Amino acid sequence: MGSFMGHILPGSFFLIAGLWWAGKYSLWYATRRNKSAGAGRLATRAMQRRMEILEGAVVLTFSLIGILAEQFVANGPHFQLYNQTAQQWEQLMIWQHSTMYLFFAMSGATTLTVHLTDTAPLALDRLILSIAFFSEGFLFYYHLHGREMLDVHVHTLLLYAIFAGALTALLEMFHRGNVLLELLRTTTCILQGSWFWQIGFVLYPPSGVKWDLTDHSNMMFITVCYCWHLACALITISVLYCTVCCVIRSKLRRMPPMEMGLLKPREREVESEDEVL
Amino acid sequence: MGSFMGHILPGSFFLIAGLWWAGKYSLWYATRRNKSAGAGRLATRAMQRRMEILEGAVVLTFSLIGILAEQFVANGPHFQLYNQTAQQWEQLMIWQHSTMYLFFAMSGATTLTVHLTDTAPLALDRLILSIAFFSEGFLFYYHLHGREMLDVHVHTLLLYAIFAGALTALLEMFHRGNVLLELLRTTTCILQGSWFWQIGFVLYPPSGVKWDLTDHSNMMFITVCYCWHLACALITISVLYCTVCCVIRSKLRRMPPMEMGLLKPREREVESEDEVL
Amino acid sequence: MGSFMGHILPGSFFLIAGLWWAGKYSLWYATRRNKSAGAGRLATRAMQRRMEILEGAVVLTFSLIGILAEQFVANGPHFQLYNQTAQQWEQLMIWQHSTMYLFFAMSGATTLTVHLTDTAPLALDRLILSIAFFSEGFLFYYHLHGREMLDVHVHTLLLYAIFAGALTALLEMFHRGNVLLELLRTTTCILQGSWFWQIGFVLYPPSGVKWDLTDHSNMMFITVCYCWHLACALITISVLYCTVCCVIRSKLRRMPPMEMGLLKPREREVESEDEVL
Amino acid sequence: MGSFMGHILPGSFFLIAGLWWAGKYSLWYATRRNKSAGAGRLATRAMQRRMEILEGAVVLTFSLIGILAEQFVANGPHFQLYNQTAQQWEQLMIWQHSTMYLFFAMSGATTLTVHLTDTAPLALDRLILSIAFFSEGFLFYYHLHGREMLDVHVHTLLLYAIFAGALTALLEMFHRGNVLLELLRTTTCILQGSWFWQIGFVLYPPSGVKWDLTDHSNMMFITVCYCWHLACALITISVLYCTVCCVIRSKLRRMPPMEMGLLKPREREVESEDEVL
Repeated sequence: MGSFMGHILPGSFFLIAGLWWAGKYSLWYATRRNKSAGAGRLATRAMQRRMEILEGAVVLTFSLIGILAEQFVANGPHFQLYNQTAQQWEQLMIWQHSTMYLFFAMSGATTLTVHLTDTAPLALDRLILSIAFFSEGFLFYYHLHGREMLDVHVHTLLLYAIFAGALTALLEMFHRGNVLLELLRTTTCILQGSWFWQIGFVLYPPSGVKWDLTDHSNMMFITVCYCWHLACALITISVLYCTVCCVIRSKLRRMPPMEMGLLKPREREVESEDEVL
Repeated sequence: MGSFMGHILPGSFFLIAGLWWAGKYSLWYATRRNKSAGAGRLATRAMQRRMEILEGAVVLTFSLIGILAEQFVANGPHFQLYNQTAQQWEQLMIWQHSTMYLFFAMSGATTLTVHLTDTAPLALDRLILSIAFFSEGFLFYYHLHGREMLDVHVHTLLLYAIFAGALTALLEMFHRGNVLLELLRTTTCILQGSWFWQIGFVLYPPSGVKWDLTDHSNMMFITVCYCWHLACALITISVLYCTVCCVIRSKLRRMPPMEMGLLKPREREVESEDEVL
Repeated sequence: MGSFMGHILPGSFFLIAGLWWAGKYSLWYATRRNKSAGAGRLATRAMQRRMEILEGAVVLTFSLIGILAEQFVANGPHFQLYNQTAQQWEQLMIWQHSTMYLFFAMSGATTLTVHLTDTAPLALDRLILSIAFFSEGFLFYYHLHGREMLDVHVHTLLLYAIFAGALTALLEMFHRGNVLLELLRTTTCILQGSWFWQIGFVLYPPSGVKWDLTDHSNMMFITVCYCWHLACALITISVLYCTVCCVIRSKLRRMPPMEMGLLKPREREVESEDEVL
Repeated sequence: MGSFMGHILPGSFFLIAGLWWAGKYSLWYATRRNKSAGAGRLATRAMQRRMEILEGAVVLTFSLIGILAEQFVANGPHFQLYNQTAQQWEQLMIWQHSTMYLFFAMSGATTLTVHLTDTAPLALDRLILSIAFFSEGFLFYYHLHGREMLDVHVHTLLLYAIFAGALTALLEMFHRGNVLLELLRTTTCILQGSWFWQIGFVLYPPSGVKWDLTDHSNMMFITVCYCWHLACALITISVLYCTVCCVIRSKLRRMPPMEMGLLKPREREVESEDEVL
């Protein structure tokens, strides 16, 4: 299906997800750090829960839209798997993409369940997110058969970002609430997003000037370029983190001091949800 | 020895084991969660121990039956390893299967020892289970030499499920009683079971219509299909988990409230066996 | 240098080391478990320390003897590395073996340092042991170039045992005193020892009947055989463990009960050395 | 760009960094161990922080100098990436080196931020250091295409040291202040440094006598030689550690005993920074 838009679209989604995560985790960490100064009022546990539910709902919705869009585009398979007349599988690429969306939909649904009800263990959302990333990487891995050198190389580099994200999410199962792991996962997500854009520009250049897919020096450049994307992702996140910190501090300075006695005992308990597991 | 039934049988065993585990761990987790509501009476520690002993006994019995059945079928090796007259090894495939059963028999025996006596450390059952899965994967890995592309591919996918199960069991050695790891192992077990069925239907189709084992699009379909099996395993477990939760809640609602004073001090101690290690 | 004795000798050393470890760790674990019954008197901390020092001294001595023996055998290199006249390296195989011994000598010296003085952190002995195993595996790995199929295969299987031992020792750095990890390392050590014997019998059969090193069914048999070695190692250790448990219990039954007050406070402190780290 | 000096220079940097780390961590560990004897006065928390800031500043400065030097040497690219006239990438090798320096510069900047301000979580410096090592290894890995056997082999061995360092730094994120991990990372750093020297002497021998890059016995020697470098790194560190311990003890003996009451409460709190995380 390879097309320019087919790489720009998922890339944009991952970029937006990464930026959202960077903001979210920065806010929570800065709030936790300045709790003694009353920052708890800026991002209460109830607000955190609402953000998680919103995130789950958005992920679930967009994944379902993605599945339907892939299946019902002009030449899509319309949920037909096997073409009896042509004796062949119907549009396996699109089925692959639908499957990827399916796992992200499951991840979104899990986030909703975990934060709307009390039945499931908290860390389940990270486990399912990890499985979603693993499945994405797994499907991409068996996607590369018989392509040209540079094409395989750019997708292999994409796999590093995907599997790094999956492993980080898995580690978070055991170290939930560790801000470094959260930001590391965010980094891999932003890297994945920007690399999707890069792939789009390399394989389907909108300028029309084709890259030589068999040239070794192109491959070397792409490798260096990947490191620059990683560096940019790290810098983006640190800029976002600093901004959030500054905003919170300036807000705290303008806030009247709060008496600790006003904190309801129930709220204090709930705030430590992360450590309950 | 490849045959349709030779894949359906082990698949069914793993499926049953997976469903049993899903039910068992869901029940225990739901009980632990609702302990304050008196759920401890629904699944006491004594009952848990009885379930473990039953499981160990069943695994041990079936593994021994498996070994004997493999050795004494019509053309089995009858425990003869080397055929002196033909100057060759006798039925190495069957010896491989017997060896797999042997490790699962050891795993069953360990479960019995751990829960019937006090001598062995608790986490030993997970270590031996992990070794049993590793051995199974190891033997399968060196099983694939010289087969056709799709045949190798379906068995490679099986290996992922097996090794994922082995690694999860190994992690459980350090995080015993973590419900997510237990359910993750359950998922890999159900996936393994259902994938054995899939292999049976792909390599020895009962309908008689052979698959083209060298067609690349078949291979792509199988990869996507594997992800669906994984998704189905996850959904099966979550449905089972929800059912167990509902049943326990409805039972708790019909139960008269219990006074905490009635809990004997000894029982409380024993219930935390998982954290003793 | 490949010879029958060249595999039997190291194999015997690893077997003896494995059996010693199995006994040592079983004794310590059984003592810890029955501490309330006064078992602390059977294996006091001072005795544990003496056992460790003895082990370190033996490992160090034998490694140094090994280096000297390798260097000064009839056609050894006598510590000469480069043969100027022949313009070639002098006996690189022997230098490889000397290097392996060197790392085990360092491991022995570390054990001595850790338990004789107070300067080094306790877990250092496991780290250096792990490095010794890794180096052994590393040198074996680059040892296999250009050999025949079965020869490569038996050494590859050896590598699994070596690296499993190295990884377990590394894990022990973080989970020191975990009896399951200690016994797992013991298992890999016994497996390594018995597999060295197996290699000796396969590559240099004393009966004189050569194995066909290119026959695939031989390779399949060797794979199954490796699993049997693993199973035997596990069974050996469990038998040893049970024997030690029985002996300790019978001794405890014949001992007069001890008053807890007699335990000197200093001793109690020292006994928990493992948890100090 | 391969040249003798091009390997000696980075090697020397890594060697110096390794020796500095070995001294630093030995000093801190010995201080912590002898805290009850008043050693806290020898390396106060304020001094530790100053050492970290110094380290960060030096790393940052040298990395920036490295980037500028690489870009503006006689035939450097002067920050021009693509040569429009020749229709090819401009000096990709130098861009690769600049990228490596860039990540180490980021690591230095992180160390400065973490220890100069309070905004960032402590373990962030290890995470970024780990990413810097990973990027270095990653760029080297895709650097080896189409070279000769021995050339590839010596760089592969270098990769082991780099990735071992990266993994150790990653582990330190979770076990901060574990002296064994710190010294293990130091070992890999010294090994990397001395191995860079070795590579320089093998590939660009100053004596002028070229090595045969396709001779298998040369490859075997290099493998053994790598283990010797590792052993030397370990011995160097232990000698340094012992020296530091002796110096501290002799200083403590000459110091008048200190009354604990003199320790200001604030200082005691700050000293446990490592466990705050």
